[in-house]
Amino acid sequence: MFTPRPIGHARTPYKQTSKIPKGLGVKHDAEGVLEILPEFEPGLLDIESLSHLYVLWFFDRSEGFDLVGQPPCDDRPHGVFATRSPRRPNPIALTVVELLSRDGNKLRVRGLDMLDGTPILDIKPYLSNVPEEKLRRGWLAEAEARKENQE
Amino acid sequence: MFTPRPIGHARTPYKQTSKIPKGLGVKHDAEGVLEILPEFEPGLLDIESLSHLYVLWFFDRSEGFDLVGQPPCDDRPHGVFATRSPRRPNPIALTVVELLSRDGNKLRVRGLDMLDGTPILDIKPYLSNVPEEKLRRGWLAEAEARKENQE
Repeated sequence: MFTPRPIGHARTPYKQTSKIPKGLGVKHDAEGVLEILPEFEPGLLDIESLSHLYVLWFFDRSEGFDLVGQPPCDDRPHGVFATRSPRRPNPIALTVVELLSRDGNKLRVRGLDMLDGTPILDIKPYLSNVPEEKLRRGWLAEAEARKENQE
Repeated sequence: MFTPRPIGHARTPYKQTSKIPKGLGVKHDAEGVLEILPEFEPGLLDIESLSHLYVLWFFDRSEGFDLVGQPPCDDRPHGVFATRSPRRPNPIALTVVELLSRDGNKLRVRGLDMLDGTPILDIKPYLSNVPEEKLRRGWLAEAEARKENQE
């Protein structure tokens, strides 16, 4: 297919996986920097006009995959393609971040949930939402409801 | 890093790139099927409970990359990371689709914008929107405004 290469690295407050907030209703508001390799800096032209970005990155500290697994936010197993588990056939992650500012090849962003030093594969513009009334969160909404009933 | 592998292929109405709707305000409502390889079918457990999915796929008919280019919807150049150009350092694409139904390893979806036969890399749950009042579409909104002024 193709040979993935890093376009840069994430500078985040997280040195260990255990420090990254996980679970139901978690808010990712950690700030940090996407440091793009100097050779790719021209590719950032006009990016500062956008408020939100998709960041595709490499789960570089994950090995192998499980097709079915129990996420930290539920007591039931789900298929890997219905979860954000790092143990995937292609270890690619996706995070939506808010772009706060740009300084040359450095993008200051909010909403990071990856480890410090994580290789970045791609950045894309976030341009539109799914209509809120059409969005169903399925098993995750059910897990939340069960948890509320227990509390 | 890692060696990408297809988890399945997209069955879409598009046999040629020129037939895929492009440009400002375009709506992607093409229906088709994400046909997951039988060995990965267990990874779809509970996916039918979700209304929308992220599909990561391989721009398999694109070669090389341009850091700056002029998208079909504007008369000005922009950085590749501010656009959805297929000519990217890592030729990975991202599409949000609505899940209509599941039949075993086949997901019927709406919102496809890739060629028939395109290799799929990953599927993830679409779980939340960016708050609408915080979303800025930057250069794209400016291009739309210029176009409206011309009409």
